[in-house]
Formats: sequence, C-alpha cells, structure tokens
Amino acid sequence: MNDRYDPAPGDRFSFGLWTVGHRGVDPFGLPTRPPIEPEEIVAHLAEVGAWGVSLHDNDLVPFGVPASERDRIVARFKAAAEGNGLVVPMATVNLFTQPVFRDGAFTAASPAVRRFAVRKAVEAIDLSAELGAGIFVLWGGREGVETGVARDPRDALQRYREAIDFLCAYIRSQGLDMRLALEAKPNEPRGHIYLPTTGHMLAFIASLADPDIVGVNPETAHESMAGLSFHHAVGQALWQGKLFHVDLNAQHGPRYDQDFRFASEDLKDAFLTVRLLQAAGYDGPRHFDCRAYRSEDDAGVYAAFATGCMRNYKLLAAKAAALDADAEVQEALAAAGAGELREPTPAFSPEVLERLRGEDFAAVIDDDTGRGHERADQLMLEVLLGAR
Amino acid sequence: MNDRYDPAPGDRFSFGLWTVGHRGVDPFGLPTRPPIEPEEIVAHLAEVGAWGVSLHDNDLVPFGVPASERDRIVARFKAAAEGNGLVVPMATVNLFTQPVFRDGAFTAASPAVRRFAVRKAVEAIDLSAELGAGIFVLWGGREGVETGVARDPRDALQRYREAIDFLCAYIRSQGLDMRLALEAKPNEPRGHIYLPTTGHMLAFIASLADPDIVGVNPETAHESMAGLSFHHAVGQALWQGKLFHVDLNAQHGPRYDQDFRFASEDLKDAFLTVRLLQAAGYDGPRHFDCRAYRSEDDAGVYAAFATGCMRNYKLLAAKAAALDADAEVQEALAAAGAGELREPTPAFSPEVLERLRGEDFAAVIDDDTGRGHERADQLMLEVLLGAR
Amino acid sequence: MNDRYDPAPGDRFSFGLWTVGHRGVDPFGLPTRPPIEPEEIVAHLAEVGAWGVSLHDNDLVPFGVPASERDRIVARFKAAAEGNGLVVPMATVNLFTQPVFRDGAFTAASPAVRRFAVRKAVEAIDLSAELGAGIFVLWGGREGVETGVARDPRDALQRYREAIDFLCAYIRSQGLDMRLALEAKPNEPRGHIYLPTTGHMLAFIASLADPDIVGVNPETAHESMAGLSFHHAVGQALWQGKLFHVDLNAQHGPRYDQDFRFASEDLKDAFLTVRLLQAAGYDGPRHFDCRAYRSEDDAGVYAAFATGCMRNYKLLAAKAAALDADAEVQEALAAAGAGELREPTPAFSPEVLERLRGEDFAAVIDDDTGRGHERADQLMLEVLLGAR
Amino acid sequence: MNDRYDPAPGDRFSFGLWTVGHRGVDPFGLPTRPPIEPEEIVAHLAEVGAWGVSLHDNDLVPFGVPASERDRIVARFKAAAEGNGLVVPMATVNLFTQPVFRDGAFTAASPAVRRFAVRKAVEAIDLSAELGAGIFVLWGGREGVETGVARDPRDALQRYREAIDFLCAYIRSQGLDMRLALEAKPNEPRGHIYLPTTGHMLAFIASLADPDIVGVNPETAHESMAGLSFHHAVGQALWQGKLFHVDLNAQHGPRYDQDFRFASEDLKDAFLTVRLLQAAGYDGPRHFDCRAYRSEDDAGVYAAFATGCMRNYKLLAAKAAALDADAEVQEALAAAGAGELREPTPAFSPEVLERLRGEDFAAVIDDDTGRGHERADQLMLEVLLGAR
Repeated sequence: MNDRYDPAPGDRFSFGLWTVGHRGVDPFGLPTRPPIEPEEIVAHLAEVGAWGVSLHDNDLVPFGVPASERDRIVARFKAAAEGNGLVVPMATVNLFTQPVFRDGAFTAASPAVRRFAVRKAVEAIDLSAELGAGIFVLWGGREGVETGVARDPRDALQRYREAIDFLCAYIRSQGLDMRLALEAKPNEPRGHIYLPTTGHMLAFIASLADPDIVGVNPETAHESMAGLSFHHAVGQALWQGKLFHVDLNAQHGPRYDQDFRFASEDLKDAFLTVRLLQAAGYDGPRHFDCRAYRSEDDAGVYAAFATGCMRNYKLLAAKAAALDADAEVQEALAAAGAGELREPTPAFSPEVLERLRGEDFAAVIDDDTGRGHERADQLMLEVLLGAR
Repeated sequence: MNDRYDPAPGDRFSFGLWTVGHRGVDPFGLPTRPPIEPEEIVAHLAEVGAWGVSLHDNDLVPFGVPASERDRIVARFKAAAEGNGLVVPMATVNLFTQPVFRDGAFTAASPAVRRFAVRKAVEAIDLSAELGAGIFVLWGGREGVETGVARDPRDALQRYREAIDFLCAYIRSQGLDMRLALEAKPNEPRGHIYLPTTGHMLAFIASLADPDIVGVNPETAHESMAGLSFHHAVGQALWQGKLFHVDLNAQHGPRYDQDFRFASEDLKDAFLTVRLLQAAGYDGPRHFDCRAYRSEDDAGVYAAFATGCMRNYKLLAAKAAALDADAEVQEALAAAGAGELREPTPAFSPEVLERLRGEDFAAVIDDDTGRGHERADQLMLEVLLGAR
Repeated sequence: MNDRYDPAPGDRFSFGLWTVGHRGVDPFGLPTRPPIEPEEIVAHLAEVGAWGVSLHDNDLVPFGVPASERDRIVARFKAAAEGNGLVVPMATVNLFTQPVFRDGAFTAASPAVRRFAVRKAVEAIDLSAELGAGIFVLWGGREGVETGVARDPRDALQRYREAIDFLCAYIRSQGLDMRLALEAKPNEPRGHIYLPTTGHMLAFIASLADPDIVGVNPETAHESMAGLSFHHAVGQALWQGKLFHVDLNAQHGPRYDQDFRFASEDLKDAFLTVRLLQAAGYDGPRHFDCRAYRSEDDAGVYAAFATGCMRNYKLLAAKAAALDADAEVQEALAAAGAGELREPTPAFSPEVLERLRGEDFAAVIDDDTGRGHERADQLMLEVLLGAR
Repeated sequence: MNDRYDPAPGDRFSFGLWTVGHRGVDPFGLPTRPPIEPEEIVAHLAEVGAWGVSLHDNDLVPFGVPASERDRIVARFKAAAEGNGLVVPMATVNLFTQPVFRDGAFTAASPAVRRFAVRKAVEAIDLSAELGAGIFVLWGGREGVETGVARDPRDALQRYREAIDFLCAYIRSQGLDMRLALEAKPNEPRGHIYLPTTGHMLAFIASLADPDIVGVNPETAHESMAGLSFHHAVGQALWQGKLFHVDLNAQHGPRYDQDFRFASEDLKDAFLTVRLLQAAGYDGPRHFDCRAYRSEDDAGVYAAFATGCMRNYKLLAAKAAALDADAEVQEALAAAGAGELREPTPAFSPEVLERLRGEDFAAVIDDDTGRGHERADQLMLEVLLGAR
C-alpha cells in the first residue's frame, strides 16, 4: 500500500502508548497480546510512519517507582523517541487506574485524595515538560458518581475548578509553554461523569481563573456515546478558539466505549470531521486514541489498525479535497445554502429594527422551494463511495 | 386528594398552554382530544391550583393574524389569566412550526428567513412584556441539520450568536426587565440540533456580547435523550449562576421526546433534582413542560396528569426534607463524603506547592475503606419508598 | 446519472405511497409539501424507475369512505399502477392513525376496538388481494404502553396472537396466495411497543396456530433504534426462513424514528445488509420505507431522495460483488475465518463425546495468532471508499 | 433492619460467586477489594440470608487446574455450601475470559475452538450436576463481532445451534434433571452479540432439535442496554413458558453494562417486574446478577449491596400486594382496561366473520373517553412512594 495515502510527518499523526500498546484486556477477558515495552512501541510507530507518541505518566513510569528509577525510565524513553524521530506532542496524567481514585481525583470527597491528585498532575506536567509536550490533556475518568445522593454537583464542580486553577497557576509559575486540553466523557467508568460533553467542558473553562491556556480535547467515541455529532463538537470548539487537541477514533452509538479504528464506524461524520479540521487549518496533532480489536495480534495492530487510522484520515482528506473541487457538488452545496449561511445577520440598531419591522416577508413565508439537502448528501455519499 | 401535597401559589407551579393544551397528535396519529381555547385552559389550570401559565406566541395568537385581531386576542387572554389569578412568568417564540423555518430560523441559510425569525422573536418579546413575563425562553428546534455536508457548524453558531445578540440589544434598548433562557435539545425534530445540551448552551452564552441577561432553561427529557443526568445539568447551571428557568417532565432514555408527567420515569433523578432546586433556593417557576398520554381525555389531563406533576414535586420535596432530617441517613451521607466534598482544595502558591511536594500520601494510597455509597443510595431508596 | 446504477425492474425496488408521498409534517411542524394524489405518486415512481408501489389501506382509501367511493378509488389507482407498469407487491393496514386505536388495536383493552381492528385488517387483506399483493405487512404501532401498570404483557400477547391467528385463518379460508410479514419497532409512537425487535417477532411467530404463512419485515431504522445490527436481524430472519419482506432506510442510532434515505447513515451496516440479501438470493421486494428530509420539495423527493435509495442499493451491490471478486480481500476474509465458520461442529454421539473428552487442546489454547479482523474491515472500507 | 423485609429461604434469593465476589476491577481501574475465597463468600451470603449461590465453572475451579485439584476444590466448596445451608440452584460455564475465546466460543471460526468450547460446557454441566444445580445458564459473551465483514450471521447461528443441540443431547444422554437457560445481551464485550435480546433467544430456541429443555434467563441490565422494557421481556418469556431463570439488577439505559444493585435504577420497571413474577407464580430463583460500586469494601458489599437487593425485592413485592389490595387503585386499573384485556378476541369462523362484517362500530369509533392511564400510573407512583 505504498501510495499517496502513506503518512508523512506533516500530517502530524500521533498515537498514545496506551492505544497501540493496549493488550486486549476487557471487563470480561484477560489480555490477548503479550506485554510490550514503550521503546518497542515507539519503534513500531516510527516504522508505520507516525509523527508523534503521547502518554499518561504511568504508561511510561509505573505508579510508585522511586525517583531515580523514574529518571532512568524517562531518559531511556526520550532517547528511544528521538532515535526514532518521534516527537511527544502531548502527555497526560492517569487519575483513574489506582484504587485511591476509586471515588474521584480532583472531585474526590477526601481532601487528601484531592491533594494527591493535584500533586500527581503537577508531576505529570513536569514529565510532559521534560518530554517537550506542549499539550497536557486531562481526562477526569473518575470525576463522577454512580449515585448522586451524597454529592452536591455544585461542590464537585467547585473542587474541579480549584484543581484546574491550581495547575494553570503552576504552569504559569514555571513559565512553561504548555496548554491544558480537557477531555469530556458522559459515562464509563462512572455512572455519570461531571462535565459529560465537550459543551459542558467549554462552559466550565469559561469559569476558570485563567481560561486562556485551557481548551478541549474532544473524542469521537465520547461524543458518540451521548448520541451527539462529533463534527459539531469539533466545530463549536474551533468556533470558540478552544480546539487544542483532538482524539480520533470510532464508536457505534450509545454503548460501552469502543475506541475503534478511526473511521471504521459512522463514516459520514468521520468525513465531515476531517473536512472541517482541514478547512479550519487546525495545526495540532491528529491523535488516534483507539485500540485494535481484542482478536488481533501485534502484527495486525501496526499493519492494519494503526496504518488504517492514518490511511483513513488521508483518504477522507483526499475525498474532502475532491468534493470541494467537484463543480457539480459545489453547485449543489451552494443551492443547499452553504454560502448564504456565511452572510451575517444584521446587528441591532434602532434603524435596523425599524427596517425589520417594515420588511415584507410574504414571499419568504410562501416560498416552498426545496433546500436540496438530499441531493447534496447523496452527492457527498457518491464522492465517498468513489462513484464520482 | 386534599392534603399537604396540594399546590399553593408559593410553589410557583406553571404549565405551558401547549402542555395541558396538547391535543394528542403525534407523528403517527390524529388528535384525540377536541380543540380547546386558551381561556378554557387558564380556567382549568386555576382550578387545579397552578400559579402560572406560559405560552409560545402562536399558542395564543395564530400565525399571521392581523394586528387588531392580535390585540383583541391578547387582551382577552390577559383578562382571563388575571381573572383566574394566574401570572404569566414566561413566554417564548415558536420558530419551528411554520414551513418557512423548515431549515432553521436564526441559523437558516437564507438571510431573509433569519431576519424574519429575528423579527418574530422581537414581536414575541413585545408580547411577553405585555403579559408581564420576566423570562423569555428560546428553543431552537429547527437550528440543526439532517446532513452536515452543506453547513459549516462555525457559520451556524456565528449566525446563532448574532441573533441572540440582537435580541439582547433589543431588550436593553427597551429597558425591559426581561432575561433570556436558552433551551437545548440534542435532536428531534432535526437529526442533530446545534448546542445540543445545557452544557453547550452555557458555553455559547459565555461567547455572547451581553451574557448577563442570558441563562438556560434545562429540560428533563432533553438531557435524558442524550443519556445525561438531569440533576447534574441543573447543578452546573446553578453553579454558573445561569438557571433562569427549568422545564420539568420525564423521559425514558434515548428515544423520541416523550415529555411525560413529571417524575413518572427515572424517579431517582427526579428526586435529586427537586432536592437540589430546594437546597439551592431556586426561586423561579417550577415549569412543567409535558403532555398527557394520547390515550387521555381532558378530564384526565387536569385531574391526573397536571395534578400529578404538582403532587409529585411536593411529594419529592417532602421526601427531600425527610431525608435531610433523618439522622441515620445524614450519618450515611457524611460517611459517604458529602461534607468532606465541601472543603476546598488549596489554591496554588509556592508554599502550598512545597508542602504538597513533601506530603506523605502512603496512608491515603493504602486506605481501602469503602466509601459507603451503596448504603447511602439504599437509604435514599427506602426514604423514597416510604420504608423509613 | 444514466449509468449502470440505474434501476431496472429485476431489482424489485418498491416504495410506499406514504414514503415519497410524505408531506413533511412532524411533531413540531406543519407539512412543507403540497398535497399529492396517489396517481401522481405512481407516475413519478414509474418515471424514476421503481418496480413496485405499496400502501396502507388509508393511504389510498380515506378512513370511513362509503364502499362505492372506495371501489371507484381502488379501480382508478389500479389502472394508474398498471398504466405505469408498476406492481403492488405488498399492502398493509393502518391501525395507528385513527383515535380509536389510541390505546392499541389488536391489543386494545376494549374488545370492541379489537374486533374493529380485526375487521379493518380483513378488509385491508381484501384490498391487498384485489391489488395483487402477495405480502401483507402488519406493523403494530399502537400495540404497546406508556405505563405498564394496567396491562399484563401476557394478556396483550395472547390477544395479539388471537388476532394474527384470525387473519391467517381468514387468508386460508379465502384460498389467497398471501403471506403475512410482521414488523417490529421498539418504541414510538408508544413508550414501549410489544414484540419490540425482529427477534421478538420471530419468537412470537413460532407460537402461532399457523406459523407457515407468517414471517417478518425487518426495518433498518427500527432495529437501529434499539442499537442493534440490522444485518444481523436480516441474517436471523433468513436463517429461520422468515424474511418475507424488508424495509430499507437509515437511522442514526437510538432517537426518534428517522426513516432517512437508504444508506445515508451507517454505511457499513447498509453494505453488509445488501451483500447478505444478494448472497442469500432473497427475491422479495427491496422496499424503501423512508421519507425525504422535511426541507425538500417534490422535485428533490424523486430526483435525489428516491433515486438515491435505489442508486445506493445498486452501488453497494456492485461493491459487494467487487469485494467478493478481489483476491486480496478474499484472502483476508479467509484468514479472518469466514470459510472455517462454514464447517459444522460435530453432532453429539457417545463416540464424538469420547473423542472430545480425549482431545488435546493445548495448542489451541496457546495459539495467540491474530484473527485479522482489522485488516479485513480496513480492506472492506477501502472497497467502500473506492480506494481499491 | 430486622423486619418483614428480611430474606427467608422461601424467597429463593441467590447470588453468583462473581457478583458479591467481584473485586472492583473495571476497564480503567485495578481491583479495589482484596482477594476472597469462594468459601468466605458462601459464609457471608448465608449470614445475610441468601438461599442460593450460583457460579461459573472458573469462579470456583481456576482454568486449567488438574482433575485431582479440581475435585478437592469442588468438594471443599460443596461442604461449605451445605455447611452454610445454601443450595446451588444454577451454574454456568465461562466461555469469555480466556484468550482462546477472543473471537467466539460456540461461534468461533476455528472448529477446534468450538470443540473446546463444547467440551468445556460439557464439563461445566458435569460440575453443575455434581453441585445439584437444575439450571444451566449459557451466556455467549464472545458470540459476536466487531466487524461483520468476515462472518455470515447465518453460519454463526447454525454453529450456535449445533453447540446447543450437542449440550441438550448430552444432558438427555446422562439422564440429568437439568434445563438450559440462554441469556441474551446486545453488546459488550463484543461490538454486536448474536441473539442480542431475550426475543431473539426465544426465536432461536424454537429452531433447536430439543427445545423443551431450553429456556431463557433474561437480565435487567441487558434488556435495558437496548432500551427495552425488562418486564415486557419477562412477560414474553413467561407467556411462551420459557422463563427458566432470571437475572435481576439495574441499569441506566444504553451504556456500559452497569449491573447495579437491584431496583437502584428504573424503579417503576423493577416494580412491574416483581409484580409480574409474583403474579405469575414464578418459582425459580430470584437471582441477583449485579456487583457493588467499585468504591465499596466487603463490609458494604454484604451489609448494603446484597442486603439491599433482597430488601428491594421484598419491598416491591409488598408494594405489589398493597397495590392489588387498594380498592381505589383496583378501580383505576379496571377503568384503564386491565380486566377487559383478559377477554379473548373471537377466533375465526365463517359465522364470526359474518358477524364482524355486519357489526356497527360507529359508537366505538366516536368514543373519546380517556383511558385513565395517567391516573393509574400516578396511583402506582403514590403507592411506590408510600403516599397511600
């Protein structure tokens, strides 16, 4: 498959250590793939053409290892990444695996657990800085409840804000060139997670002490678990200037978090997402936060799964370019109003109001011309199917 | 059922004309209840003890009637409301029924449709002011897509903002004592609606020119359609100072918009919502935006459905008070961390950081004491069931 | 678009009068398309290349018209269909629109309503026979509840069975060459509908007095509303010899019934469905039970929407043939076990058991070779995208 | 809480070893509870008043232990159960944890894996018989796909049938007094599982060689994951004479499999389920297939979680009795048609048809009396809330 869909560094494709490194364990089954070292993962990623590798602190440094051991591990990994020509564009902190976080991290009831979570995040920020990561993602997997009876959600949000404010102040105090990207998820592993969608996160960010360095990291599967349009989530984040990172994968609607190979479900929304990212000039990582089916071995993980994620992005980007270069499609999109929608609605002024009050809308009200969305959608589908 | 669960004006219970006035039509069936006049509805609502009545412009004034007729209709209605001792705490604009809005109102591609939508909203604001409504709700039922191919979501959000900014400026220009409450819904009647949840709305509000007079109107069914916790949505709105209105009803998870009698589904979340509203001192309307099953007649609409909504609120409020007065339950909630969560996480300072870096968390990490959520939840359930 | 994807009579493409004839009304909006006569619909369908037209009794004959008027209407329609070269492969009975059915038809509590429903179905069978339809579909849209408190589901199923048994006996008594196809739906317009999926229907059929002439009519949207795989539903129906009819459309997961243009959502499942129907030699109608977006006019309904349904079927059938002719893909499917799965598991006998008890499975248990599903899926995706 | 809601042997309450024995591991977190031996679990269950304990083969006998070790383990467990006065009403086979089943067990592509699965099931049947279990449950957690491209669902169902037929023949050959109960689940851990609901299972059973000894084991959470009514699933199973076992727990709609404490979500459906089981005289185990929140310790697992499951069943059974003894409620249910629905619809005969054709339905069609479901539902809610 050596062709124009091969990945190039300029594509900024990255994978988490925990994605291709996932060993196939699930709630009902043991691992199906043998253990693997971070350095091996890095070598494989380089081979298949990835540009970056991301990680949670504990993907690299096991929880609780002494400082000296930690330094050795980090140095070895850094060397491996550099040796393989991979950057570390993003890092994050694991605040969900250890039992200490079983009832929350930043929103744990226990003040000591919260302090510990903050310190762990501070240390992970240090690690991120050391690895050169400009983006620090925060996913609050345990920040939620199974039952709300002993939790006032307002208290939880207040504690959440205090923790993020702390981390922002720490980043500023260190003069780091780093931004936070908050990742929402509606549920799993908790019954209900606070700030369940990208929208809630954007609202929360507006309440922070230092919102400028905080944005979002929307994930396909997470929005889809709430039945929401992922490309709309990405669109709102872009529109609010807050798309700091993006997690691409696939999900078949509301159910367990599937994290499938990018574009392997809901192809239309995947296409619209790629088209939007390209059109918006998004220049951050195209990060694949997914994992291979449990039935696969490591050969398949790289040759089919990881390669497939990148190929699908490029295939869809090429389709987007083709669609935008197809005169008939462009005419159909225009007929469906894509251009009209770019014209502003007038701002209020007494004069505009006066004019509006006097405007005759009879023809507008009576106009029953079709909007042509079926045609536009069908043409898109035919572009996708390679039928034009 | 004359008892302590009977509604009183201080409960601030309100119903929309379109709720008890719903005639039972659905996508697969004709109306099952005979036509009814707004004035009859008002009389019935007064009889069953409601405090307020709300309305869309066209619930009262049919679309397209001349101004003189409109004035006559409004005057008659106003007299009926006053005569029955009902206030009009909220009004809204219908931007979804007429074919002119079939592809959006504030986010229609057609600039003329958008201008018409703005003018219709301005006129509905005038009507609201005339009726003394301090809250003006906006639900953008048609602001969305079935296919995203011909719509850049960023354009749509920009148009949406311009329209809301226009209305805010208009309200300011008129010196009205009125606030906007935006209502989110994930889908239906459009495939995907922009700003699909209360979270997205809160984020959007932060981007407005005049955010102070704009808040949200969360609705039980709408959040539940995305599988989200309604009491968490209400909690975030309260926490951000934006709970301007609330639409109470019931819904059985992701499916068509059911708008069932308040508390008739997901009793636990209904209880937590009532408890939160009461605890937060929310003093706006308790608005029931629901409709009776299509199998009912108007006798049932008032005697069972509307009465049931209000009774359930009061029953649950009484349960909330009982729960908070039950020493064993309070002890269980404390054990589960309800109080601890109120203690702040320390703010950043070099000294705090220093202390944090030196803190010994070994005991915290090793602590495997249960958090007691099962007990707390079970006690709540027994309070709900009247078993304690 | 005159090409090899143009419909031909052999494709057996059919549409319901209520599909292309849908006027765009929805729970929140008025019709957006002007009224249209059945005969006009038939002419348009013929123009775009459909083979068949289906109908509910009341799509053609308004509820309650006198017999003489009914006969005139039917004769006119029959002439129009024949004149346009269209067959009527399927008809059905509307047991959901009229208020009399607001609480059920075959499962209404009222014995009189049930008798009326049975009589209406008998008359619709007569109409079907008159029009030459060999398939009579039954969709029990009102056979369900919003609340289960006053309904024992066992009673409801018993009444349901009695009604179907009655209709089977009637068909036999008339010597008609007609089979029933039962259509499941999980909810909407009722809160919960009895026999909510194709699986429940198949189980119910096994309980009937005369199961041979009763099969199923699975619908894409209806299975998707429960999050289920449509092609698995079709597969089970085929495997049990019960796929008597099929309703093709598209749906974006659990939400209101969308009935979108075939293949416009969940392209992968649409592809697998077409591939399965073709592979199984299904020779019944390919029936499109969907409706155009409300934003469209009748020009779009035929030129884009109806044409798109048929083109998509043929595009996907061509992809299926291409996939099955692609040596690399075939090798990948074989590696993923498609062929192995065709080998039977041995039947029980004392000897087989003996052999099994003695078999050494150590190598099987230790084998950690990947199954190659990622590769197979990626190759399918590339075939779909026209990238190979 | 020593009161009339304390469990008694006659209640037939049972728990799986894997339920109270669950150690709190989840896809994102390590175990939170220390290891525990089956014998300890049995002692705890006896203490809280359970009647039975159920198990998967490997809950008791670790995968791969030699026969002598296996016999020792089983004998010790049997003694512990007997010593604690607990019966083993049901046992099952784990065909999902081991990597060998990563792509299916009875429907694995590999014939050797299928044979191994059958042998493992045979051995588990032997174990069940040894422990005196009359019910053998089969949950096919791995019988499904993430992608359907390399699987014809008809092949998979055929293999599934062969395996079940084998087991039935084995049971018959051994003269065992044992019945199979098949358990459906729509997804998780596979993307789509074959036979995804109780309805599909019932249909599948009708296709077996020896259907008499095969029934179903519906589970609350599993039906709820597809948005379906659990009490309707139980109702259809009862109606078809196939309710051989039942798995009671709780789930908040379509999302990951929550397996919450019985009745802690969707209280109304839990109530209707208990009412139906009691009314139907179901005399099998009331089996709780759920697990405590991960935040709990073993003290909470027994004192709150397990006790809560049993208390909730008895609380709801008492409510059901109260509801059926409340004259006003009974009158409301009768008004809503509960009794009328029990009257049969006449069977077909030429005379009945004749009468039907001549019947005057005008009054039935015009009758617009409400059905009274709102009142009935509200009264039920008030019974549930202890408000009457």
